[in-house]
Amino acid sequence: MPIAKGIAEAMTSPQASAIRKMFEEGIALKKKYGEDAVCDFSLGNPDLEPPPEVDRAIRAQASLVQKGKHGYMPNPGYRDTRVAMAEKASLEQGVAVPPDNIVMTCGAAAALSCVFKAILEPQGEVIVPAPCFPDYYHYAANHGGRLIPVPARADFSLDVDAVQKALSPKTCAVLINSPNNPSGKIYTTGELAALAGALTEHGNRPGNRVPYLVADEPYRDIVYDGREVPALFGLYGETLTATSFAKNLSIPGERIGYIAVNPAASQGAQVAAACAFAARILGFVNAPAFFQRVVAAAWKCRPDFSSYRTRRDALMSALDGAGITYAVPEGAFYLFCKVPPRTQPGDSSDGAFCEHLRANLVLCAPGSSFFCPGWFRMAYCVPEKTIDTARDALKRAVERW
Amino acid sequence: MPIAKGIAEAMTSPQASAIRKMFEEGIALKKKYGEDAVCDFSLGNPDLEPPPEVDRAIRAQASLVQKGKHGYMPNPGYRDTRVAMAEKASLEQGVAVPPDNIVMTCGAAAALSCVFKAILEPQGEVIVPAPCFPDYYHYAANHGGRLIPVPARADFSLDVDAVQKALSPKTCAVLINSPNNPSGKIYTTGELAALAGALTEHGNRPGNRVPYLVADEPYRDIVYDGREVPALFGLYGETLTATSFAKNLSIPGERIGYIAVNPAASQGAQVAAACAFAARILGFVNAPAFFQRVVAAAWKCRPDFSSYRTRRDALMSALDGAGITYAVPEGAFYLFCKVPPRTQPGDSSDGAFCEHLRANLVLCAPGSSFFCPGWFRMAYCVPEKTIDTARDALKRAVERW
Repeated sequence: MPIAKGIAEAMTSPQASAIRKMFEEGIALKKKYGEDAVCDFSLGNPDLEPPPEVDRAIRAQASLVQKGKHGYMPNPGYRDTRVAMAEKASLEQGVAVPPDNIVMTCGAAAALSCVFKAILEPQGEVIVPAPCFPDYYHYAANHGGRLIPVPARADFSLDVDAVQKALSPKTCAVLINSPNNPSGKIYTTGELAALAGALTEHGNRPGNRVPYLVADEPYRDIVYDGREVPALFGLYGETLTATSFAKNLSIPGERIGYIAVNPAASQGAQVAAACAFAARILGFVNAPAFFQRVVAAAWKCRPDFSSYRTRRDALMSALDGAGITYAVPEGAFYLFCKVPPRTQPGDSSDGAFCEHLRANLVLCAPGSSFFCPGWFRMAYCVPEKTIDTARDALKRAVERW
Repeated sequence: MPIAKGIAEAMTSPQASAIRKMFEEGIALKKKYGEDAVCDFSLGNPDLEPPPEVDRAIRAQASLVQKGKHGYMPNPGYRDTRVAMAEKASLEQGVAVPPDNIVMTCGAAAALSCVFKAILEPQGEVIVPAPCFPDYYHYAANHGGRLIPVPARADFSLDVDAVQKALSPKTCAVLINSPNNPSGKIYTTGELAALAGALTEHGNRPGNRVPYLVADEPYRDIVYDGREVPALFGLYGETLTATSFAKNLSIPGERIGYIAVNPAASQGAQVAAACAFAARILGFVNAPAFFQRVVAAAWKCRPDFSSYRTRRDALMSALDGAGITYAVPEGAFYLFCKVPPRTQPGDSSDGAFCEHLRANLVLCAPGSSFFCPGWFRMAYCVPEKTIDTARDALKRAVERW
């Protein structure tokens, strides 16, 4: 029997994600041409190893003798872990976040999935500044919602006017991701305060819901040039953050993250309960027990992110050499680049350019997947020698484009 | 802002699950009255520790030095793990299952969630023999489907005629769970062959889909009195199994399981791809990396399940002593019991009886949650002293009922 029509359509949409396809094709290309010949910038798979504290916490957990340590716990997670995450969220947000406002999840993707299950009414709209992570589309659509990408300003800063214009009686949430994947942009406190004002004003008008502000924050700690990611809880009551340790601790395959509900939210206890219930009925049940304990022990440590800065600069120099323009990333580990004008006859789209790059053994993700045609994304969480190899390959590719 | 109406309703439905509520109230009651005073039969949280091979595999993984071992891998999981699970599925099903037909998941609940996302058309019906696990309701409803519980026979064996009558042009799948939670029933090859015949016949009629047979098999290895759980892949082509190591290896909190697609399925490769895609877009992304490696190393071992048999018999004797009748479990670790006739004035429902038991510090789950009013479930994966303590408590409770 065939699969369901809906998923068959989703699997062939631009948001089916060329990223994963590139990642998987990259594995095949590396087998064929050798690991060193292929420059894989496709996936945000941190190549930094977790810091030694994570290894130590893993070994400590592995030798811990404690009955039931791999068993079920209440859906929102272990109390100790939630206490630790509440401390982390309080530090980041500058307000005291109680442990009851934390729901442990199988990563940030799971966190968003649970949040949207908890808050989206049928046909409810989720406004998101574009470019943005492609799977946001599905995270909203899975629960009957609809993602409304709204272009950011030309420099990828938050276009509050555009968001405001997109608000409607169907708006359930505004989703932001700062530092942004793929642009690397960090929204400023000023922009966020203006956004909060717009949401409050909208919510006060009869017939509208007060929108939730949902912040996807896995890159919060990866910032450059002394920048900081602003706190949100003080700016807007109905705020939920979703995050993970995928990038912070370089453990994306372990699927561990959490939701934090602003203590100022008008129905925070109910929202947290609904998120935990969503985690159960969506089949997550709970975040993996072992890594709940690991992050409770090791959440304060960080890998040395300075190499991301080094690589960012190296890749920017390679792009300069190839004549490719880009947005200078303020955080995260992606370079969002403009597809150069095509000089040869043929398709000049970002998809075609990424195919062209692939023929030159450079794997990137097309901007269309991020709701931003004409651009492409390079994930630079890769070894420096990959960037070195890409230097000539990018130049050659642009010359032949 | 309030949560979505849909989830608010789901949270107050009978399938919101009295089980988890009881589990969480149990934690509170134990704090109040002491661990030993409360007889908690609420949750299928195995009290057997994982076998030593699992501990060894965890320690080996903890000291393994391998770059990227906590990183992303392709959504369906590590190749090595899929090869191991394919070997397991082949042994169980008696046909050669290729690794490409395995999708690693965050447990069996996740496996079912991904399967339903992959195969359910809007309003698509999932027929399931009742009693059954309450959350099946949500696993179907989350993806626009509808669970159709069809009562099993009086002895909880499969009522193929009843299933056949429930089949409709909207039927997308028949879901079975054998050994059954809560009844402990194992469906026989004869019953399953008759079911396969009915599904084939239905699928051959114009206007109907060929239904998928989805088998939720986390209890496959927990059987009594020399029984075996029959293979399914040889009986019916369009079969998918969902399973986990929650009960097999006593690691339910770690969220590790898989989907196996019958190699005889007409569009098996597409189904496996859709399940992996569903895992991605639902926010699971992949099964936890660490435990993927652990189960690849330790899948052949088992805890000593003989104590489940001992406890089953002890609890049956306690129930006999209290005058409560039940179905003798052939597998799994639940006793499904009939609510005794009420001799005092008042509500005589299974919900009221479970409240009455709770007042006597015995925690059980009402049958209504399992689509089977008039019954209640006792999970006997608990220490033997809990069963000893329950002996008097049950007797006392029935006398006062």
